[in-house]
Order: sequence, then structure tokens, then C-alpha cells
Amino acid sequence: MASIQDIGLSAAINLMSAFAFLFAFAMLRLQPVNDRVYFPKWYLKGIRGSPTRSRGIMNRFVNLDWTTYVKFLNWMPAALQMPEPELIEHAGLDSAVYIRIYLLGLKMFVPITLLAFGVLVPVNWTGETLENIDDLTFSNVDKLSISNVPPGSPRFWAHITMTYVFTLWTCYTLYMEYKAVAIMRLRHLAAESRRPDQLTVLVRNVPPDPDESVNEHVEHFFCVNHPDHYLCHQVVYNANDLAKLVAQRKALQNWLTYYENKYERKPTNRPTTKTGYGGFWGTTVDAIDFYTSKMEVLAEKEAAEREKIMNDPKAIMPAAFVSFKSRWGTAVCAQTQQCHNPTIWLTEWAPEPRDVFWDNLAIPYVELSIRRLLTTVALFFLIFCFMIPIAFVQSLANLEGIQKVLPFLKPVIEMKTVKSVIQGFLPGIALKIFLIILPTILMTMSQIEGYTSLSYLDRRSAEKYFWFIIVNVFLGSIITGTAFQQLKSFLEQPPTEIPKTVGVSIPMKATFFITYIMVDGWAGIAAEILRVVPLVVFHLKNTFLVKTEQDRQQAMDPGHLDFATSEPRIQFYFLLGLVYAAVAPILLPFIIVFFAFSYVVFRHQVINVYDQKYESGARYWPDVHRRLIICLIISQLLMMGLLSTKKLAKVTALLLPQPILTFWFNRYCAGRFESAFSKFPLQEAMVKDTLEKATEPNLNLKEYLKDAYVHPVFKGKDFDRPRVVDEEESNPLVPTRRTSQVTSRYNSEASSSNTATPVANKHTGSPGSM
Amino acid sequence: MASIQDIGLSAAINLMSAFAFLFAFAMLRLQPVNDRVYFPKWYLKGIRGSPTRSRGIMNRFVNLDWTTYVKFLNWMPAALQMPEPELIEHAGLDSAVYIRIYLLGLKMFVPITLLAFGVLVPVNWTGETLENIDDLTFSNVDKLSISNVPPGSPRFWAHITMTYVFTLWTCYTLYMEYKAVAIMRLRHLAAESRRPDQLTVLVRNVPPDPDESVNEHVEHFFCVNHPDHYLCHQVVYNANDLAKLVAQRKALQNWLTYYENKYERKPTNRPTTKTGYGGFWGTTVDAIDFYTSKMEVLAEKEAAEREKIMNDPKAIMPAAFVSFKSRWGTAVCAQTQQCHNPTIWLTEWAPEPRDVFWDNLAIPYVELSIRRLLTTVALFFLIFCFMIPIAFVQSLANLEGIQKVLPFLKPVIEMKTVKSVIQGFLPGIALKIFLIILPTILMTMSQIEGYTSLSYLDRRSAEKYFWFIIVNVFLGSIITGTAFQQLKSFLEQPPTEIPKTVGVSIPMKATFFITYIMVDGWAGIAAEILRVVPLVVFHLKNTFLVKTEQDRQQAMDPGHLDFATSEPRIQFYFLLGLVYAAVAPILLPFIIVFFAFSYVVFRHQVINVYDQKYESGARYWPDVHRRLIICLIISQLLMMGLLSTKKLAKVTALLLPQPILTFWFNRYCAGRFESAFSKFPLQEAMVKDTLEKATEPNLNLKEYLKDAYVHPVFKGKDFDRPRVVDEEESNPLVPTRRTSQVTSRYNSEASSSNTATPVANKHTGSPGSM
Repeated sequence: MASIQDIGLSAAINLMSAFAFLFAFAMLRLQPVNDRVYFPKWYLKGIRGSPTRSRGIMNRFVNLDWTTYVKFLNWMPAALQMPEPELIEHAGLDSAVYIRIYLLGLKMFVPITLLAFGVLVPVNWTGETLENIDDLTFSNVDKLSISNVPPGSPRFWAHITMTYVFTLWTCYTLYMEYKAVAIMRLRHLAAESRRPDQLTVLVRNVPPDPDESVNEHVEHFFCVNHPDHYLCHQVVYNANDLAKLVAQRKALQNWLTYYENKYERKPTNRPTTKTGYGGFWGTTVDAIDFYTSKMEVLAEKEAAEREKIMNDPKAIMPAAFVSFKSRWGTAVCAQTQQCHNPTIWLTEWAPEPRDVFWDNLAIPYVELSIRRLLTTVALFFLIFCFMIPIAFVQSLANLEGIQKVLPFLKPVIEMKTVKSVIQGFLPGIALKIFLIILPTILMTMSQIEGYTSLSYLDRRSAEKYFWFIIVNVFLGSIITGTAFQQLKSFLEQPPTEIPKTVGVSIPMKATFFITYIMVDGWAGIAAEILRVVPLVVFHLKNTFLVKTEQDRQQAMDPGHLDFATSEPRIQFYFLLGLVYAAVAPILLPFIIVFFAFSYVVFRHQVINVYDQKYESGARYWPDVHRRLIICLIISQLLMMGLLSTKKLAKVTALLLPQPILTFWFNRYCAGRFESAFSKFPLQEAMVKDTLEKATEPNLNLKEYLKDAYVHPVFKGKDFDRPRVVDEEESNPLVPTRRTSQVTSRYNSEASSSNTATPVANKHTGSPGSM
Repeated sequence: MASIQDIGLSAAINLMSAFAFLFAFAMLRLQPVNDRVYFPKWYLKGIRGSPTRSRGIMNRFVNLDWTTYVKFLNWMPAALQMPEPELIEHAGLDSAVYIRIYLLGLKMFVPITLLAFGVLVPVNWTGETLENIDDLTFSNVDKLSISNVPPGSPRFWAHITMTYVFTLWTCYTLYMEYKAVAIMRLRHLAAESRRPDQLTVLVRNVPPDPDESVNEHVEHFFCVNHPDHYLCHQVVYNANDLAKLVAQRKALQNWLTYYENKYERKPTNRPTTKTGYGGFWGTTVDAIDFYTSKMEVLAEKEAAEREKIMNDPKAIMPAAFVSFKSRWGTAVCAQTQQCHNPTIWLTEWAPEPRDVFWDNLAIPYVELSIRRLLTTVALFFLIFCFMIPIAFVQSLANLEGIQKVLPFLKPVIEMKTVKSVIQGFLPGIALKIFLIILPTILMTMSQIEGYTSLSYLDRRSAEKYFWFIIVNVFLGSIITGTAFQQLKSFLEQPPTEIPKTVGVSIPMKATFFITYIMVDGWAGIAAEILRVVPLVVFHLKNTFLVKTEQDRQQAMDPGHLDFATSEPRIQFYFLLGLVYAAVAPILLPFIIVFFAFSYVVFRHQVINVYDQKYESGARYWPDVHRRLIICLIISQLLMMGLLSTKKLAKVTALLLPQPILTFWFNRYCAGRFESAFSKFPLQEAMVKDTLEKATEPNLNLKEYLKDAYVHPVFKGKDFDRPRVVDEEESNPLVPTRRTSQVTSRYNSEASSSNTATPVANKHTGSPGSM
């Protein structure tokens, strides 16, 4: 194991590289030309004007004020200054609570570190075991860890006591944090101004009815069963194909703009392109004409598709967004069962419009159930067998394999440098590529599982990623061999042996994880703030595509906090901290630096950069809390395993109450706080309703909700939409005159034949216009 | 192992004893004097008059019509004749569905038995393994089991295929049964006439309010938050002490009646009793005077307690039964969260009045949470360590121990016969006593857990008993050693070894379980129908306590289906059937006889005897279903374990999808049907409301609900209640004039000071009168 000097050197190097990143960031962010990369949020908010307008030509691109460079770290205090309520106002509750996770790490680990260094380090240091073993190469780092205490020593009482103290402190901070977040969420919901999702319920699995269209069926059902509260509804059109066409046209538009710009700059020389895929082969044509004609074809297709969706009753999915007159009525409908068959007329709170995942709104119950089974099995294999296909790819991607498949590359490959690069890098690259696309795979799996909102998809992907990290990164680093081999050996070992096997290896891996924290944690965070990819992409776009100020706004990529991938990574640091708190406290300061540094960086990013795709009101906290509890229980079990190998089998039983109490604590917290994240109490709903009625007695809610839940392709956001569509846009999703006539005729037939729903006729007004 | 002849003999003996029981039953039930023991349900329904009136003196007691004796089994077809809808009408859905469990056993196991005997028995019989082993004592029973198939033989494909067929068939019958029961329940709920619990919600954890009493606080809260639906409410008085006093007085009343009867029969000689406990020691006094004076004292105490409850605001528990104007409003309130703090204002469907467990209505959330933790831990120790205290008692209860503690018994103990009885029986008796009181222990634990209805308590106790049976009866019979030793050895074995260890022993235990089924199952059921204890108790009461016809009615003890103890026992037979279906099919016919016999017997009992304490509408079915799934999964795992010892480790993996698919099937069924047992859909509620409004537009609901949820001690059922109380009874729980004045004064103060709830005053009428 490495000595303290080695670790100190490594830490110095990593700190230096982190500082290099920070310095580069400080330099780049001060250049006006990068302003839209490092402060996009302010542009999106409309607070910051373009710096390229007001100053001189040189000043437009380079910052010549040298005094600003001297204080290159002054973004740090600036990031910390904004008070939390303002931060919530500015960046949303999701982001504000997210950075609290880092703060929670500090709250949890700073006292634990102090205690561990005050109590456990002296106990370990004076253990004098390793010094007496001559044939073992040990360093002074090991002398700080539990390995230095002789087996069966009464010194372990210190460790046992401290694990209790750590557990209690962790639970206390978790409880306080859960409480604080729950209160923040409730306050946020109470303070929130009127939003469509407060009054809307997503209804899925509308059963087919031979006599009525989905539209009528939904209206009749809610008129009958929520007579005093039902206001209107919005059926869901299957616009997935249309959305694809729109996306295609957007891509084409980019190319068209690119060539137009090129032509404008060099008017002598009309740009050309090739007709094949990617413009690499095929016949050469005039680029502007080519893309213009392609655009026209697509626009026609799109118009036809729109027409089809509007007129085809099969394009209406068996789902609807039903709005109510009051929040009380909405809360009631969202939380109750509508029909004796629990697989139809499913109601749930509508996600906010931006948050809807439109593709998944119409999956029948049986299919959903089978999908979940299959994804669970697939996830299991992904976690435990992911090495198998990678090893297969690696075996293919050797020199002989490449020479066989692509013989013409032979002379290139046989060059010495190329050969060594291929042999050295290819196997690693296969793994790296897999790890990069892993979040996408997990997200796809969550999408297959059929969740209906982006926020839910993010939460489910995070859960999957968390388990992947636990098994493959944490256990995989501690025990050698692939996860599948581990699984097999675990199945063949007694359950009490598993914590022992893992527990024994833990102290030996301390230096490895310290290095991991520095490389992945410290440097990773510093890279995050530099935003290399968005920086390059922005400048490319700015050069080739931007014509107007609006285009420049479009070219910005503020990014967002990616909960699905970054939260499980934080959990990993929590796990490391909890596992090593009593085993090798030397690791703790590195964790603390990680949390502190991340806190500052992400606070800066949240304030200046990220633009969240949706706002769920910290809906994810119960997941964060539960996973922290899992980490805590893992650490307790491993501690039990470790101690039971130290000739302390009887004493280990004293640790048994820890996981039981932690598990109970989790259930207690869930009962106490979780509903604040999933339910909307009637009392709060009533208060908001009463307030609204008093302040805005003449509000036209129907008008307000009319366009709220329209598929984004029907919305006015597409800046280059053809005129034909714009006409409909002013009145989106209202059926054209033809369909409305059909519907009303149909409706009168239905109501005369179907006497079972007499109340439905009470609700007057054109049924199509919801 | 026993041969087929041995088993046949044993079966014959057991059948004979079962027939002896049945014959005794047939004789006894024909005697008019026993009519109230064997047909109490008809008396309670008022359909059957007392046979002792209409006939001659001799005919009153003994049936002299010899023809009736000839057809001594004719109760069987009679029991089967009543069609199911009539049975539901007559005995309630709970009972009707309960006997369907036995029918389900038949549906499940008759085809399985046919298949097993058609396919597996020939395959096993011709396996020719045991015949080739000379040193093993085997019988022809073993030749029918899987032991006769040589290890590694391709014959095991038959077993693997059959386990899939069995699993599919079991799941199919379970699915159909779940569906049928769900439909029966929904139909039952829909057809049900108006009942208080349809319109009432139980509200627990009403938070304390410094300005308002519980009564006012509940009213204001629901007036504000359910303004259109709230009708009235009933606070809960802490009448647990009063209930105890009433119970004491009832016991005294019995003694008084006994002595009065004695005196009436022998007027010359006034009966005496002794003042000590149980009347065994103390000074001798006149019995009638003694008990009369005691009764008076108690009556005074009772009156004081009543007075105290009525006047003391602390006697009002923070819980209430809140009634609504419509089923829709009730369904909404029961299924939604009221307050942002999910630990207060908890609402749930009110159990029907008979079903309420009054002691548990006011347990705060934190306490409840701790209670559940402690009971879970206690249950764990009860299941795994129950042998420890019993072994301790057994060690005390040996001869030396008794001689030491009670030296004066020495001469008695040293008699030879006494000695052998003590040595032979005492240890067994300690265990037997424990097993007899076990259901009571489990019920007490469930009560400590804080459930609020008797039906829920029964369900929770059944769950506990089920696990006790699985661990101690099933595993305990297969593996020697106490449960705790098993647990220890399991913890020290790899998880894959456990099914192996258990699986290997299974075929060897087939004859043991066959005997068990005959003794415990067949004979136990026959004993059930004989009702020895109620028979004796009734005749004792009839002789000593009964004066009037009403007393005789009281003396009847119809008993009831004890779900908490009998359902887990049925599950045990299901488990045996599923485990042995593919291993030793010889066991299956015994299971089928058990189910068929039980079905007839319990159908008879349900029709003629039992009087259920409550009606939950088959609310327990999800539990039954889930436990059957657990049995199925256990059988699958054990089959895997067994096969993996037969040199078929690779093939065993083919069985792995079974438990996964079964688990998934369980989740699917839960999603599909479970809500029918826990929720009341708004659509159904609306239909019932609309119907009621149309048929009874002038119904006074408030009057109807006024007395519904009054603690039973305040109800008019106590035939010997003193006059003072009777006055209040006509208007139960209305505060006496004094308190009502106090309340209204209080109310006006509160409403003037508390302006936060202005809507509350809308609801006029005396707030105390609900």
C-alpha cells in the first residue's frame, strides 16, 4: 500500500490539475465571446444582453481588463452568495435541493471525520500490529486503519461504539434533511402560482367503447362521476411520427442555413453537396436548391401527417388530460380509484406539460406488466453479465481479427506505433464506450418500462445506475473477478460469509479509492465547470449557423443537471465515506474536499448555466433518502463482516441492531414524509382554491387550460412552421369544422341510444372543444 | 418407510375414527335437547323455534323417531344443496368465500393428482433404482416416489415438465379464483343495502388544538375541507375501563343467577358461598345476598365511570367516526390524504360497527411505528426461539424439580403410575399448552401492533401463524433440530444449499405427512363437527343458569369461523400438496380427501352453526392468494434443490423461471384485483348514491347514522343495565345538558377567537349532537 507521502504527492498532482482546469475556466469565462457558454441561464432569463454589441471590436471577443484575471477564483464566493430562497426562485426547487445533497454530504461527514480522527486514528495508530509483522510490507497509511489493531483486542470497542455514533448521526442528518426538503417542497407547492398541472389529471387506459369516441367517453365518464368538479379535457393524439418529421426538418433547416451563410459570405461561388448519405458520395448538386427541395417534400409530408392525425379517430390515444374546476377536485380524482377494474381509467397527477413523455401514454396494463418483468430480467443480466459481450467485442477487436475482416488495412496495422496503440487501447475503448452509453441504455430501459414523465424516467434510470455502480464499481473494485463470478461465488457461500469476504478486503482498498476520489471526483468536477463540449459546439454553431440574434439564442446549449447519471455517482461517494468512516478514516478528508468542491461548482453551474427541462419540486428526494439508507446498511453489514474476522464473532452480534434499526428508521421516515412527495393533501388544495376564488373571482379557467397539454409539435414554438399549420395553431387541437360536425352528430346519436349516462348531457357546449 | 399396506391400514383406522365421530355427531344432533348446539344459526335468525315446547316431555330431550337414525349421513347432501347466492345471503360473504378455499383445493389438486398418477407414478415405478440397492430398506411406497428414479436419468424430464404443468395449472386456478372472488365482492358491495360503514370514515390522530375540543376540531376540519359532503361525526370515548366493569358485572350476574336458581329449586336451604377468590376459602356467607351486594357496588362504580366519561374531556380520544352525505364523499375522504402531515388526520374506511376494535383507536404515529418494530422482533424470536422457554419449563417440570418446590407432594409422586405419567406426559404437555395458547399470543401481538378492526387483527394473526407453521411444522418436521438450530445452520450454509438440504429430505418424509394429514386433518375436521366443548358448556349453562327463553338464547355459543387459526392450517395442506405433487404423488389423494371432507363439514357448519362476529366482504382474499403463492414458490425452490442433488445441476437452471414467473404473476394479480379489496371506486359509489337519491329522496341520513358508531357498552344490548343508564341510552352519547351547555359556550368562544375557520359556522345545529 502506498505511504502517506505517496498519497500526498498524488493529491498534490490532482489538486494541481484541478486548479489548472479552474484557471482555464477562469480565463475562458472572462472572454466576452464565451459569455453565452458560461452564463447561458442569464441570457435565457433575458437579464443579460449580448456583450458583443456594446463594446469595441476587440473587446467583443477578448477581455482586455487585466484586473479581472487577478481574481480568477472570485466566482466561488459569488456562487455561494445567493441565498437559498432566491436560488429556488432563480433556478427552481429541483436544482436547489439537488445541490443540498452535496451540503448534506458535508453536514454528515465533517463531524464524522472530526470524531474519527479524534478517536479512531489514535486507537489505530497505537495498535502496533503491523510493526510486529516483519514479512508484510506496510506503510503508515495502514497504521491509521483498522488493520493495525490486533485481532481480539478490546480496542475494537472504540470502533463498535463509533459505528453506533456514526449511524445515529447519519440518521439524524438524514431525518433533518428529509424534513427540511419536505417543508421546502410543501412551501414551494403552496407558494406556486397557478399552473396547469395543479388542475389536471392524466387519465390512462380509457377503455374502448363501441358507441362513443374516446373524446366523448372521457367527457361522459367524468361528467357522471365528478359532476361538480369536471371542467374540460384534452385527448392525446399519437403524434410520435409527426414529431420525428419535425425533428428531421429541423436538422435539414440547419444544413440549409449553413449553406446559405456560406453563399452569403462568398456570393461568387454557389456551394454544392452530394446526394448520398452525409453528403459524402453520390452526384454533386447545388446545395441550397437540394436542401430547399428536400425541405419542401418534408413539409408536405408533415402537413399530410397533421391532416391525418386530426381526422383519423385511430390517432387518438386512449388517454386524456382531464382538468377540473378546483385543486380539490383534482386532488380527489388523482388519488382515488375511478372504476372497479383497477387497470382502466387510471388517474394520476398530470406531470407538468414540459415533463410529459408523450410516447408512453397509451400502454395497456398487461403489456406494461410484461414490459416491467422483461426489463427487470434484462437489468439483472446487464448488471451481472455486462462483461460478457464486452469481452466478446474485445476478442474480435484484436490485430488478427481486424486484418481478417479488413485485409487492406494490413500495411497500416503493421506499423509499430499503430500496432501498439491498437493493442493498448482497443480493449479499454470497448469498455469505455460501453460505460459512456450505459446511461442511455438505462434510460431506454426505463422508457420501455412505460413511465409517463421525464422526471419519473430520470428517477428510474438513477435507480438502475445506482445498482450498477454498487455491484460493478464498488464490489467490483473490492473483489476481483467479474460481477457474474462474484454472484456465483456469493450463491455458493453462506450468507454470513459474504460480508466477511468483502469486509476483509475493504481496508486494503483504501488507497485505491482515495486515488479514485481524486481522479474521478475532483478532476471530474473541475472538468464539469469547464464545459469543453458545449464550448466547442457553441463556437462551431456560432460560426456556421448563426445569422440572427435569435439563432444565437438557439445555438446556446445550457445543459441541465442530469439527475439520472450524477445522483448515483454522488451516492457512491456517500457509500465510500460511510464504509470507510470506521475502517480507514484517512479517506474521509478526500470525500469532504469532493463534497465541498462539488457544492461550490454545482451552485455556480445552477446559478449561471443550467436550464432544467422540467420542475418536479424535488420529487426525487425519497429516492435519494432511500439510497442513502441502502448505503448505510451496506456499510453496517460490511463492518459486521470485517469485525467477525477479527476473533470477535460474539461481539459482532452487538452490531446486529444497527441494520434492523436503520431499516425501521427508513420505514418511519417513509411514513412520516414520503406522502409529501407523492400526494397533495385536500387541506392545502382547499386553501389554494379558496384563495384563488377570493383574489380572482372572474378567472376563465377553461381558456387558461385550453392549450396547456397539447403535444409540443402542435405548439407555436417551431419557429419555421409553414403557414398552413399556423392557422390551426391559433386554436390548437380544436377539431376542424368537419370533425366537429361529425362529433356532434355522433354525440346526439350516442346520447339517444345510450341512456346509461343521462348526466353527461348536462354539460353543454361543443364536446369537441373540451 | 412404511409400505402401502401400512398406510392403507392407518388410513382405514383413521377413516373409522372419523366415521365414529360422524356417527356420534349424527346421533347427538338428532336429539332435540342438543338442537341449540348443532343448529344455533337458525335460532339466531329466528327461523327455528325451541323444540322443547311443541313436543311431548320425552320428545323434548330424545329423538324417538328411529327412521331418522338410519340416514345418519343425510346432513351431507343437505349441506351441499344450498346454492351459493343463497349461502351468501344466509351466512355472509366471508363464510361463503372461506369454504371456497377448500373447493379451490379440490379444483387445484384433482387434476394434478390425475396427471401425477397418470404420468409420474409410472415413470417412478419403473425407475428400478431402489430395487438395485440391497442394503436400503425400501417399500413399495418409495417406489412410487422420485427416489426410485436413478440420478442423472432422462426420466427427470417428466418431472421437470410436470412441475411446469402444475405451476401453470395452479396459477390458472388461482387467477380464476381471485377473479371470481373479486367479482363476488364487488357484486356483494353493490347489492348491499345501506349500512353505516358505507357512509363513514374513521379518522385517527386528530391533532390536539389549544382552542378547540376534539369534537369541534373534527367538525370544523371536515366542514372546511369537505364542505359539500360532510354530514356529521361521532367522537370516540375511551370506554375501555367501563367495558371491563360491564364484563365483570356480567360474570357476577351469572353467579347470582346460578344461586337464585339453586334456591328456587330447594327453597328450604339458602345457598352459601365463601368470600375468597373463586369461592374456595374465606368466611361463609349467604350467596345471594353476597352477590347482590357485590353487584350493587359494581353498578355504582359503573355509573360513576359513565358519568366520568361523559363529563371528562380527556375521555374523548383523538379519533372520530365521520359520516358523509354520499358514498362518493366517503370514498373520496377515505382514499385521500387530508393534511400535509401524513401522521395526523388519518382517514380510512370505517370498519362495520361490530368489527371495530375499540382499544386501538388512539395510538399516535410514533408509538405505532415503535410497536410494529417491537412486534416484528418479538415474532422473529417467537418463531425461531419458542423452544427455549419450553425446554426450560420442561427441565423444571421433571420429578426432582417438583419434589424440590412442592416437597409435600413427594409421596404422591413416588407412586409408580403417577411417576410414569409425569415423566411421559409433562414435557409433551408443556409444548401442547404452548401450541394451544399460541393463537392467543399471536392475536395479542397483533393487538399490540395497533390495528383498528377485528377483521384486520384476524388477518394479521393469520399471517403470523402461517409463518410459524411454515418454519416450525413444515421445516421442523423435515429437518431435525429446533428452528433456531435450523436458522443457524442456514446462515452458515450457502443460499443455494438450503433448498438442497430440505429438498433431499422431502421424499423421506412422505409417510410422516400422510399420517399427519389423517390424524390432524381428517380426525380434526370430524372433531370440529362434533362440537364437544360447546355441547358441554351449553348443557352446563342450560342446567344452572337458564331461567327464561332469552337466557337460553344467551347460553348458545354458535362459535364462528376462526380465520386467524384455521386459514393458515389450510395453507399448510396446500403447501404439502404442492411440494409433494411432483415428488411423491401418493400423498395427493389424502389431501383431496381432506379438502373434500372439510368442504362438506364447513359448509354444514356455516349453514347451521357459526355466527360470524363481523362481515368484511371477503376482504381477506388477497392474503389467502399471496400465501398460496408463497407455498407455490417454496415448492418450486425445494424441487430445484431436490433435482440439483440428482446429478442434474445444469438442468435445474431450467426450473429457475418458475419462481420468477410466479412472483411476477403475483404482482400482476395484485395489480389486477387487489384494489377491489381495499378501495371503493368512485363510479360504483356514484351509482349507489344516484340510486338511493332516486328511490329514497326523503331519507334522514343523520338520524340513521346517529347511533351507528357508539361504543358497545353504551348500546342497548346489555339486558340488565340499570335505569340510570337507560335514560341516556335513548339518546346515546349526546352529552348531558350540562356538557352540551359547556360545549356550546366553548364553541361560541372558539368561533369568535378563531377566525381561521369561517366556513365551519355554516354547519348549524348543536355540535355535540352527532
